[in-house]
Amino acid sequence: MEERPIATVGDFSFGGDGTEGLPLDCGKTLSPVNIRYETLGELNSDRSNAVLILHALTGDAHVAGRYADGSGKDGWWEGMVGPGKPFDTDKYFIVCSNIIGGCAGSTGPSSIDPETGKPYNTRFPVVTIPDIVRAQRRLMEHLEIDRWLAIAGGSMGGMQALQWAVSYPDAVGSVIAIATTARLSPQGIAFDWVGRQAIMGDPKWNGGDYGEDVPEQGLAIARMVGHITYLSDESMHRKFGRRLQERDNYSFDFSRDFQVESYLEHQGRRFVERFDANSYLYISKAMDYFDLSIEGGGDIGKAFASVKSPFIVVSFSSDWLFPPEHSKEIVKALRMNNVEVTYCDIESAYGHDAFLLEMDTLGRLVSGFLSSRGS
Amino acid sequence: MEERPIATVGDFSFGGDGTEGLPLDCGKTLSPVNIRYETLGELNSDRSNAVLILHALTGDAHVAGRYADGSGKDGWWEGMVGPGKPFDTDKYFIVCSNIIGGCAGSTGPSSIDPETGKPYNTRFPVVTIPDIVRAQRRLMEHLEIDRWLAIAGGSMGGMQALQWAVSYPDAVGSVIAIATTARLSPQGIAFDWVGRQAIMGDPKWNGGDYGEDVPEQGLAIARMVGHITYLSDESMHRKFGRRLQERDNYSFDFSRDFQVESYLEHQGRRFVERFDANSYLYISKAMDYFDLSIEGGGDIGKAFASVKSPFIVVSFSSDWLFPPEHSKEIVKALRMNNVEVTYCDIESAYGHDAFLLEMDTLGRLVSGFLSSRGS
Repeated sequence: MEERPIATVGDFSFGGDGTEGLPLDCGKTLSPVNIRYETLGELNSDRSNAVLILHALTGDAHVAGRYADGSGKDGWWEGMVGPGKPFDTDKYFIVCSNIIGGCAGSTGPSSIDPETGKPYNTRFPVVTIPDIVRAQRRLMEHLEIDRWLAIAGGSMGGMQALQWAVSYPDAVGSVIAIATTARLSPQGIAFDWVGRQAIMGDPKWNGGDYGEDVPEQGLAIARMVGHITYLSDESMHRKFGRRLQERDNYSFDFSRDFQVESYLEHQGRRFVERFDANSYLYISKAMDYFDLSIEGGGDIGKAFASVKSPFIVVSFSSDWLFPPEHSKEIVKALRMNNVEVTYCDIESAYGHDAFLLEMDTLGRLVSGFLSSRGS
Repeated sequence: MEERPIATVGDFSFGGDGTEGLPLDCGKTLSPVNIRYETLGELNSDRSNAVLILHALTGDAHVAGRYADGSGKDGWWEGMVGPGKPFDTDKYFIVCSNIIGGCAGSTGPSSIDPETGKPYNTRFPVVTIPDIVRAQRRLMEHLEIDRWLAIAGGSMGGMQALQWAVSYPDAVGSVIAIATTARLSPQGIAFDWVGRQAIMGDPKWNGGDYGEDVPEQGLAIARMVGHITYLSDESMHRKFGRRLQERDNYSFDFSRDFQVESYLEHQGRRFVERFDANSYLYISKAMDYFDLSIEGGGDIGKAFASVKSPFIVVSFSSDWLFPPEHSKEIVKALRMNNVEVTYCDIESAYGHDAFLLEMDTLGRLVSGFLSSRGS
């Protein structure tokens, strides 16, 4: 049996104790800030083997591994991170932190607002991908790392990777950008809008002050809409088709008939147990606001003018939420700036979820890319 | 200025007065049944120029024209139906009826249940596409028409057209099936499920007994999800891009920022004013249940074995809800049965909505097809 590496959990706090808080794009300053992070592997003596992995909308710092006491369920990218795996913990020092605005250890809407002594809820400032990356930069300083050997992320994690490359070109050795975009499409914004309306329209949301009685109905709707966009039409055909769930005939009522309905219901219910509804609002909004072209006056090519590090850009053929065209746009913009870039569109039926599922092909690409970076 | 034809409104009722009610696939009988219908043009002396047009999910009997008193807003297919238009009211007698289960004149969940004297609401039986077509067949008898020159419909209207051809091959002269499918995809089922969960999860839904205080939040969510699926990624780019609505900068709160959000909000709000939430449940369920292959023991080709009438099948290149592949499947199944079939995939950026928007190209195809049928 494959051994899972040991993940070390850390909390890095700043602001509120005389240190500087986190200035945000909205004009406010967040303080204090906690960043929950996990590390795997060992930092080498010249501190040159650190790789930052960035999580997607509902991810967390637990990218892989077990805790020293043996506890810890599978991380969200277990297949990619470990001894001998593409992000090889025998070679690299892996860092993954929960984003600010989240609900898995880092400061977010459910954290205590020092001004009121109560949870921020919707008094939490709206954060952006640049804000999220700015917080990660502070963590990097805290860890006394000057340069990441690589940064890697899929989906919203990829947005953060692009932002890192633009905001801190000297701190980034190389970039692995997977199933992502330089700006969320209007279709993506539309789905996020519907999800937020479902949450905010749930009477239990209560203006964001819901306490224990969470808006589960609204959050489940948001999650179910999300899940449809993570799968492809083809993967749904393969996975569910029109098969019925535990019945031979139509119910002729409004209960579950189809397997795909059962799947969505299950995903919605499970999500409510682990994710904060307000965090969903904040993080989806951060995705909507992400538009790197703004930094280039509307031109993504110009936005990448400062980028120095080599890239690998990966898309998946059936991903319609972050379609290959968006990756190609990134590649084109990088090439305009003479950045060394490898692009691969992986043939896959899994849709956007492929970045969590196509471990073999993706793994080979990442291994090769990282090896070529040296350590 | 183009003259709009005069639409005549009729109500045909049966059952409950000694006549037979409507037997349904669920095993129940619906009685009494009213069918609201509209006609345009004149039935010729040998009653051979009647064309049945079938509406989609949220449509109604008002396909085109004004009423005799001059009132009547535009019909849902105004560009296709009128003097000199593809469905030429100078040549054809056009019939369009509101489907049972609907909320625009025909018997549906908001109708009075004769057993209780109160609205059916969720006591209304779950109806299917075959049930809907069976009711239309009774209307046909009432109108003393033996054979439709053609039947035509897009989306769920196309499902009805296919069902007509299979159920009543002798009564159908030809079929115009647009942007439709022989069985709803799991992705379509998934979106419908989310819409229904939003409605039924709205506390105002109240088990279906909401009276005047309708579940507008849930119904608006359902409609907004629907609207995203009716547009294509490309049409959203063209129509909205990432443009902001009436502002120069991000709001940094959870109000509307983007034009696409404003569009969805508007569509949701407008829909609630005109459509019944319970009807949305019933009609979306009828779409989910539609699977012609069942009639062929799992084989669409066999399901079409009885079909005699020539077909024109039309899809739109960017329609991802009823994608061209589904139309091709229909075409293939018809050709297996030596049915005369013309197929056209119209290059369009409008997505599924194209069947309501691509009037020029679609119009030419329909005109040509109908002319070749004679009158």
